[in-house]
Amino acid sequence: MANNAELLAKGLVERIGLEMGVFTHKPEGKENYKTETPIGDHEVGIELVLNALMDAKHGVISTLNEIGAVGHRVAHGGEFFTKSTVIKECERAEIEKLCELAPLHNPASLLGIDVMTKLLPNIPQVGVFDTSFHQTMPKEAYLYAIPYKYYTEDKIRRYGFHGTSHKFVAPKAANLLGKNHEDIKIIVCHLGNGASICAIKNGKSVDTSMGFTPVEGLVMGTRCGDLDSGALIYIAEKENLNYKEMNTLINKKSGLCGLTNGTVDMRDISKGRNEGNELMTNAFDCFAYRVKKYIGAYAAAMNGVDLIVMTGGIGENAKDMREAILKDLSFFGVDYDADANRKCQGEDAVLTKPDSKTIAMTITTNEELVIATDTYQLAKKFNESMIH
Amino acid sequence: MANNAELLAKGLVERIGLEMGVFTHKPEGKENYKTETPIGDHEVGIELVLNALMDAKHGVISTLNEIGAVGHRVAHGGEFFTKSTVIKECERAEIEKLCELAPLHNPASLLGIDVMTKLLPNIPQVGVFDTSFHQTMPKEAYLYAIPYKYYTEDKIRRYGFHGTSHKFVAPKAANLLGKNHEDIKIIVCHLGNGASICAIKNGKSVDTSMGFTPVEGLVMGTRCGDLDSGALIYIAEKENLNYKEMNTLINKKSGLCGLTNGTVDMRDISKGRNEGNELMTNAFDCFAYRVKKYIGAYAAAMNGVDLIVMTGGIGENAKDMREAILKDLSFFGVDYDADANRKCQGEDAVLTKPDSKTIAMTITTNEELVIATDTYQLAKKFNESMIH
Repeated sequence: MANNAELLAKGLVERIGLEMGVFTHKPEGKENYKTETPIGDHEVGIELVLNALMDAKHGVISTLNEIGAVGHRVAHGGEFFTKSTVIKECERAEIEKLCELAPLHNPASLLGIDVMTKLLPNIPQVGVFDTSFHQTMPKEAYLYAIPYKYYTEDKIRRYGFHGTSHKFVAPKAANLLGKNHEDIKIIVCHLGNGASICAIKNGKSVDTSMGFTPVEGLVMGTRCGDLDSGALIYIAEKENLNYKEMNTLINKKSGLCGLTNGTVDMRDISKGRNEGNELMTNAFDCFAYRVKKYIGAYAAAMNGVDLIVMTGGIGENAKDMREAILKDLSFFGVDYDADANRKCQGEDAVLTKPDSKTIAMTITTNEELVIATDTYQLAKKFNESMIH
Repeated sequence: MANNAELLAKGLVERIGLEMGVFTHKPEGKENYKTETPIGDHEVGIELVLNALMDAKHGVISTLNEIGAVGHRVAHGGEFFTKSTVIKECERAEIEKLCELAPLHNPASLLGIDVMTKLLPNIPQVGVFDTSFHQTMPKEAYLYAIPYKYYTEDKIRRYGFHGTSHKFVAPKAANLLGKNHEDIKIIVCHLGNGASICAIKNGKSVDTSMGFTPVEGLVMGTRCGDLDSGALIYIAEKENLNYKEMNTLINKKSGLCGLTNGTVDMRDISKGRNEGNELMTNAFDCFAYRVKKYIGAYAAAMNGVDLIVMTGGIGENAKDMREAILKDLSFFGVDYDADANRKCQGEDAVLTKPDSKTIAMTITTNEELVIATDTYQLAKKFNESMIH
């Protein structure tokens, strides 16, 4: 990281605690390495990672001493973490407190932090939070219209997620246009299996579609996004669902999957739509329409939009989805360029004509790079403060 | 109704079935009449109405024969009723079926229809549905991203409500401007204790904020409007709420009331806000911000907006709320006129400057007039068809 961010290796530990685990290690310029082996707990998983990093054949470093800091993606930073931070005792305790708000995600992050602290005790551990970029939202954007005590006592409010991606692509896109992202109004559409959209004014998030949980907002792979709460209760009562089953319904069985009776991948949905399949067409149209409505809503929230950015797996690759979203937004100053859109996939590009008042772009995101960059900078500062 | 719609009397029957009922009768040009008496059931209530209409002192007609038809407001018309209709056996059965979707409202409408049919058996009973105006919405606007069977089998979709009001004010506003409402894009904001917003293109509703139930969408007096479904489940689990309690929470304890710990009336909230009260300010800001977001969303849905209409108790009277919504929408072509807004209350007026690209208006609504007009026209046609 010192001079230039350069990827040495990436990898993945999967199915921890199950009968058979999977470990994937992809070093740059060397042969990939993948193994199936039982991975009893997170410590075993992280030992696999560290060993692979130092492996004679697949490795990219010689000793653990070459690792100067570890960055951790933490799902929920609540109202406490407004930016990335070095995790000491106090910060660890706060992340632990936030497990109540993110019971599926924060405990896993804590395990990673604890194991890394044990294995690499002398270097800074840095937390990078999915929520912290959105802590600049004004009250009218983050408060729900429910009894106020649920906010003051139970911390129920809009937090938003995908912060690292929104934070990364907005200045990246602006820079490519030769503009300062702090001078313009940007709407970032992070469209992947999880999807959220963010309104960014003067470089700050002023609203975002995911809420208290990542289920609100856009139509996603298996999450419903916006839904009439009364409808949810109606279904729950009709089918006698308990809380867990209600959560499973809206998180695992809804979204594109629900509308199509089982298809999650936008490529398959797009194909089905082109073949005239009705349910695939519904799912495609609902996805696009929801994004369009949010673009309009956030243009109203900011009283304008200069730049619309598409990112994430769908935003970077699904040409027909980008087209469905952008082609009829001329009222918003979007002069859509169908040729430009057709030409690009998985790369950074402008999707509007040269004189378009509002510019639309597709931009590749890199959340790991945000985590690495934040970690590098905080560790540097932290080490300097230790010396002085 | 024959030549000109002229109000003869209006009234209200309240607290049916409780220990003490209230009956109010307001004849035009005569003394009002109000009585407190036990009103055992709907039949007793309607007899009170008919007797008052023919009363020597307070009455406005001489005999029941002068009543040519009865119009009924029916909350839920499902997908069956796409317009107002004379209610015969088949239509009555459909309204009964729809009680499952609107268990609090449709049974009461049926009681009214049944009692009126019994008391006035020889004249047409007409049903005017809150939902029917919205039956022109496209699929992407009315489908939720939940398993598709909930739509096909259980009829769970966005229906929308307040149809009679949206349908009434859109052409009224356009006519005042000398425009044909079928040629322009209109967003109607019906802002009252219940509140909803509607996108109208070529005279047809293409989207609306209330959904399967009237709880979705805008912040209302006691309803939450849009809410992360995950947050609702989180609260329900934490407080061990059953389905009924969940419904009470989002329908009776939320909205402005929830955010302010008990204040429902926008006049009080506005006053509190002017006095610097924090919770009142939050509630005011959340209400305005939600409306703004929907205006933006529907401008995106229609790729434009020519006319924004405010109606309902708040839309017709709350000057500071109208200002909060309209003052920063210049990106949408709204050149807001603060003087014009300050001058008008409870009347029809333009709220934008003469050259504003997008026009904003406040328009008084009259749902009873829509019901009376639809009833008159349908009854006339029905009687003609009986003769031929």
